[in-house]
Amino acid sequence: MIRIAVDGMGGDFAPLEIVKGAQSISRDGLASIVLVGDVEKMKPFVTDRANLDMVHASVCVDMDETPSNALRKKRDSSMNRAFELHKTGEVDAVVSAGNSGAAMAFAIFTLGRIPGVDRPAIATIHPRIGEGVSILLDAGGTVDCKPTHLAQFALMGNALASSVLGIDSPRVGILSNGEEETKGNELTREAHALIKELGFNYLGYIEGTDMYNGRTDVVVSDGFVGNIALKISEGVADLIFAFFKEGIQHSLKAKMGYLLLKDLFKEFQKKADYSETGGAPLLGVDGVSIICHGKSNEKAMRNAILLAKKFVEKGLTESIRETMRDYQSMQKVKER
Amino acid sequence: MIRIAVDGMGGDFAPLEIVKGAQSISRDGLASIVLVGDVEKMKPFVTDRANLDMVHASVCVDMDETPSNALRKKRDSSMNRAFELHKTGEVDAVVSAGNSGAAMAFAIFTLGRIPGVDRPAIATIHPRIGEGVSILLDAGGTVDCKPTHLAQFALMGNALASSVLGIDSPRVGILSNGEEETKGNELTREAHALIKELGFNYLGYIEGTDMYNGRTDVVVSDGFVGNIALKISEGVADLIFAFFKEGIQHSLKAKMGYLLLKDLFKEFQKKADYSETGGAPLLGVDGVSIICHGKSNEKAMRNAILLAKKFVEKGLTESIRETMRDYQSMQKVKER
Repeated sequence: MIRIAVDGMGGDFAPLEIVKGAQSISRDGLASIVLVGDVEKMKPFVTDRANLDMVHASVCVDMDETPSNALRKKRDSSMNRAFELHKTGEVDAVVSAGNSGAAMAFAIFTLGRIPGVDRPAIATIHPRIGEGVSILLDAGGTVDCKPTHLAQFALMGNALASSVLGIDSPRVGILSNGEEETKGNELTREAHALIKELGFNYLGYIEGTDMYNGRTDVVVSDGFVGNIALKISEGVADLIFAFFKEGIQHSLKAKMGYLLLKDLFKEFQKKADYSETGGAPLLGVDGVSIICHGKSNEKAMRNAILLAKKFVEKGLTESIRETMRDYQSMQKVKER
Repeated sequence: MIRIAVDGMGGDFAPLEIVKGAQSISRDGLASIVLVGDVEKMKPFVTDRANLDMVHASVCVDMDETPSNALRKKRDSSMNRAFELHKTGEVDAVVSAGNSGAAMAFAIFTLGRIPGVDRPAIATIHPRIGEGVSILLDAGGTVDCKPTHLAQFALMGNALASSVLGIDSPRVGILSNGEEETKGNELTREAHALIKELGFNYLGYIEGTDMYNGRTDVVVSDGFVGNIALKISEGVADLIFAFFKEGIQHSLKAKMGYLLLKDLFKEFQKKADYSETGGAPLLGVDGVSIICHGKSNEKAMRNAILLAKKFVEKGLTESIRETMRDYQSMQKVKER
């Protein structure tokens, strides 16, 4: 059975919701769980020990701690202990809803990077018009990127989409301010020249609308732009739902309409809800690491663990390792 | 009466929709219009000459022409002739739905920049939760920005919000990947240090969600990020409406609900529709210049001209000039 370490102390609703989510997986026999954290604090919520171990770690990374501080002072935290269990092969994946900057720092420090990856990237999965999903990376891992970083993101996104999500020849694009080659900024122009040479299904520049209209499978950006794209999306969805909520207050007709459409509203909110995908994989570290929203509840944790399981089963790490190995050989051939 | 030059040949639906929109203003006596373009092509659509003049210009800037090409070869285009009429004082503002890169280039070339402004910015106006609107700048004018450019955008956005839109002490923020001072990228960190010193109601970093939740009045970013923010917003709104459209196909109940909620759906689409605001002012050039969507129809043109009129009446140019003068004096005092 696949073994997954869960940071029991990470997240706004830890340990209660974390333990409940993790236990729902172990109880169903879907994976074997190792809960890492303050055993005294987690224990009261554990009702079923089948497929569930606990590893004690008294220290906890705070949600507002800087990653560098955590890295210096919190090596024996529940978060880092989980990554250590992965490093030594005791588990196959790590799931944490704790401080995401610190999780990224510990993942890099403890698991290490896959050869050929300079900067890991957070990949988020989004609904879109029609079938399928779009992948955005980097959604906030690396803020100041070089062109080679974007090229590596493109390679990793392509690997995730094809090997793990089963998309045949995924369409990859760089998020830009227009489709023409004359568009883009200094960073994307250089990245474009690099990615063109990589030999997969590369669309060139894409626009913000293409993230949701089904034109693109993998959307590449630096972590600054990616995070803004993510939060703007949340903001627009909130605006639209707030508008309808306000509108139905003032009209009985609209209120009745809303009641009839309620299932659709709920279905959309479910589609857009982070707790449905559960979390985002950190691509480029040597292992499977899922970073969850700080507000993760039981359902979000359950789905994040299922995502981790799927990534282990589909060989995410190996597929990225292979992609990067091919890329490095290609670079060496060019240098000759 | 305020006089406004309209580029009769600019836009996907020129000259028909442009002439109709412009004429709807002149006929109502709201402003005096100067239609600039190929008179033979515009004339058939002109039915009422009250408050409406025509100035002939046979050359037209193509929609996909590079700005540098237009600047070199199309100085006698309808677009540039409109800016020349503004420069010589024959009109008070210019409205164009043509090639927006070229419009920006000609505005800078012909009108010139306001002293203290290095790069003009396109400001777009957005609905938000609750009352009022949010201003985003730069929405795509200047892609590669320096920190001083963002500081100038903040000053200009503040001037637009307070003097023209009447917002008391507007809240200004830099669009970033998180609120904490440790967030941001190289550009925003330096810009943050500059803007902090400017003395208006500066919030520091804001997140993508703050563009729509009512927390911010003026959202500052470089033109690359701003354009992506804009297009992502469009994409999410399209996704949500496509989801409902698809959903009501499969359920009679949902279809009935939609019919009852139709007014609200329409109201929102109106709120989000570019043709309602009409266009975006180009801030920092020495004059009032409104850049419209290439797909502008009669209504969009009418609203863009009304926006131009409002900006002239409220003294947009003078208010930005004053702001930049104060800023320059402040810089000089500091240098001493």
